[in-house]
Amino acid sequence: MSSALTDLLRHPIVQAPMAGGIAVPQLAAAVSEAGGLGFLAAGYKTADGMYQEIKQVRGLTSRPFGVNVFLPQPESADPAAVEVYANQLAGEATWYDTELGDPDSGRDDGYDVKLAVLLDNPVPAVSFHFGVPAPEILESLRRAGTVTLVTATTADEALAVQNAGADAVIAQGIEAGGHQGTHRDIQENDGSGIGLLTLLAQMRETVEIPVVAAGGLMRGSQIAAALAAGASAAQLGTAFIPTPESGAAPVYKRALTDPLFVRTGLTRAFSGRPARALVNRFIREHGPYAPAAYPEINHLTSPVRKAAAKAGDAQGMALFAGQGHRLVRELPAGQLVQVLAAELKAATTALSAGGAGR
Amino acid sequence: MSSALTDLLRHPIVQAPMAGGIAVPQLAAAVSEAGGLGFLAAGYKTADGMYQEIKQVRGLTSRPFGVNVFLPQPESADPAAVEVYANQLAGEATWYDTELGDPDSGRDDGYDVKLAVLLDNPVPAVSFHFGVPAPEILESLRRAGTVTLVTATTADEALAVQNAGADAVIAQGIEAGGHQGTHRDIQENDGSGIGLLTLLAQMRETVEIPVVAAGGLMRGSQIAAALAAGASAAQLGTAFIPTPESGAAPVYKRALTDPLFVRTGLTRAFSGRPARALVNRFIREHGPYAPAAYPEINHLTSPVRKAAAKAGDAQGMALFAGQGHRLVRELPAGQLVQVLAAELKAATTALSAGGAGR
Repeated sequence: MSSALTDLLRHPIVQAPMAGGIAVPQLAAAVSEAGGLGFLAAGYKTADGMYQEIKQVRGLTSRPFGVNVFLPQPESADPAAVEVYANQLAGEATWYDTELGDPDSGRDDGYDVKLAVLLDNPVPAVSFHFGVPAPEILESLRRAGTVTLVTATTADEALAVQNAGADAVIAQGIEAGGHQGTHRDIQENDGSGIGLLTLLAQMRETVEIPVVAAGGLMRGSQIAAALAAGASAAQLGTAFIPTPESGAAPVYKRALTDPLFVRTGLTRAFSGRPARALVNRFIREHGPYAPAAYPEINHLTSPVRKAAAKAGDAQGMALFAGQGHRLVRELPAGQLVQVLAAELKAATTALSAGGAGR
Repeated sequence: MSSALTDLLRHPIVQAPMAGGIAVPQLAAAVSEAGGLGFLAAGYKTADGMYQEIKQVRGLTSRPFGVNVFLPQPESADPAAVEVYANQLAGEATWYDTELGDPDSGRDDGYDVKLAVLLDNPVPAVSFHFGVPAPEILESLRRAGTVTLVTATTADEALAVQNAGADAVIAQGIEAGGHQGTHRDIQENDGSGIGLLTLLAQMRETVEIPVVAAGGLMRGSQIAAALAAGASAAQLGTAFIPTPESGAAPVYKRALTDPLFVRTGLTRAFSGRPARALVNRFIREHGPYAPAAYPEINHLTSPVRKAAAKAGDAQGMALFAGQGHRLVRELPAGQLVQVLAAELKAATTALSAGGAGR
């Protein structure tokens, strides 16, 4: 299988663009240098901040890399619901000796300006989260030589991605850490979120474009599984959090294997949109009351989360993590890519040797 | 890989023991005849009813097959909560011109008597749901020449299964239709249920015994994926519901691809324990209020569900289904096993051809 996407990959391994200071230039460059596809996270940054990071990656590697962009959020949330939640969070701000953020600090994440930068200074790949870009935008990027990817969480969303003209779709299973990239925020926590292996089968029969598998992937055997189910590559996030190149705080890295955190859950507590994180005190106390109000709630809680991280208190932080978090390995990012590629090869060989009747 | 389990299989395909009249002797026999492992469901039946079905399968095939048994439920539910829910369901009983069942019709599902029958007249395989049997029981079955399997939904549960001495563990992902086989009913609907591909990686590094993958599997490419991730076989339920051999009502078979049913969800509405079903009117109206009270609620709703099925009203039935339900194919069960085996072989070949650097 050859495509614009797979031409960028020596190994079918994409590093997830973890926003919030994790997917820093050092991490993206190390992954790309090792033959994977490193990614920067433009989300929550200014367009200039994004541009500075792109220049840093270019200084570290000549291999292809990508930049992830958040779609603007057109729907305004109910201000009263945001205010009620702000009242509930007042004690957190006091406890961590900070103030709540302004929920109305903007809802487009500088989308247009970032796209203008990415068209003026094209990068090898751009991926999108929280929706589908206009076909003209995808077409402009293609003309600029950029491979485009868009996240989808259902087969219907994958079809919308293909119809808009993207080069590839990222199949994000319910196992994935961080924000679910649903195109509209309609996800109910009623168990309807789709597991990765089911999603791959559904998408493979719905779209023709390459599918990148994401969600809970920590081992090369799982990457082999994703490829067997029809994916062209796999995107891993949590696996890269404990690498020395990642920008995650030490307390966050340690939390991934801390026996204190027995499970992950989906919560609106931190941002107003469903995201998977290690279940900690903040989620238990506030999750049930958090309104569907992204990005207002994200702005609101941002200073609290930063202050908790500064205090080294994992119970007040957003510890975004996929369901496989306990399987993290503390390796340099490039070495992790090599280990994953070797495991993938071994699993492929074992499957062939076992045959269909093993 | 060879084990007591895989010796029973020409193809690594197990038919899930769907209780409630779906996994009838004709279905189990057809699957086993084709080289898979057919299964009967002893759940909700008398020991004699189970024995009659075993004799029927033996009359239809000389190939190995299995019987699934439910563990007794030791914890009693709050009677007041059951009564409140019974009041809520009164209108359903009136509407379908029936009466609610007696919630106190027993909580052990005839476990001891069924085991006595299975020890007197051993079958090739016995699987367990809703908990771990005592080690002595698993040992007795092994001495009788029976291969034992126990469902688990986490790596910790899989370890308990191995420690009790079972021959294999069934890794049930959150994608699976019907009841989640959690060992204790502590599952919260907060997105903490684990996706199959993550579960396989976790279990593969926790236990030594063979793992059977279950949840959302509809295509041979997904079976190849499960094997690549370390499973020894795959268990499919929903895929077999529309076969002519299955005992599912025609309205249930049609519902699996009816555009009316856009998603599955996890609900306690029908039985008091979380089970995945097509989201219909009954779940929307009653799911949010159903208490954690299995099997009381199962007894309570049983006549209503039967009456709804008799009336051909899918909106009042328990349409248990996995997340892949739209991918069902109306084929005879034996032919479906052959198609799945061919797809598995094709996916395995394609993965090898693609290589690790595709």
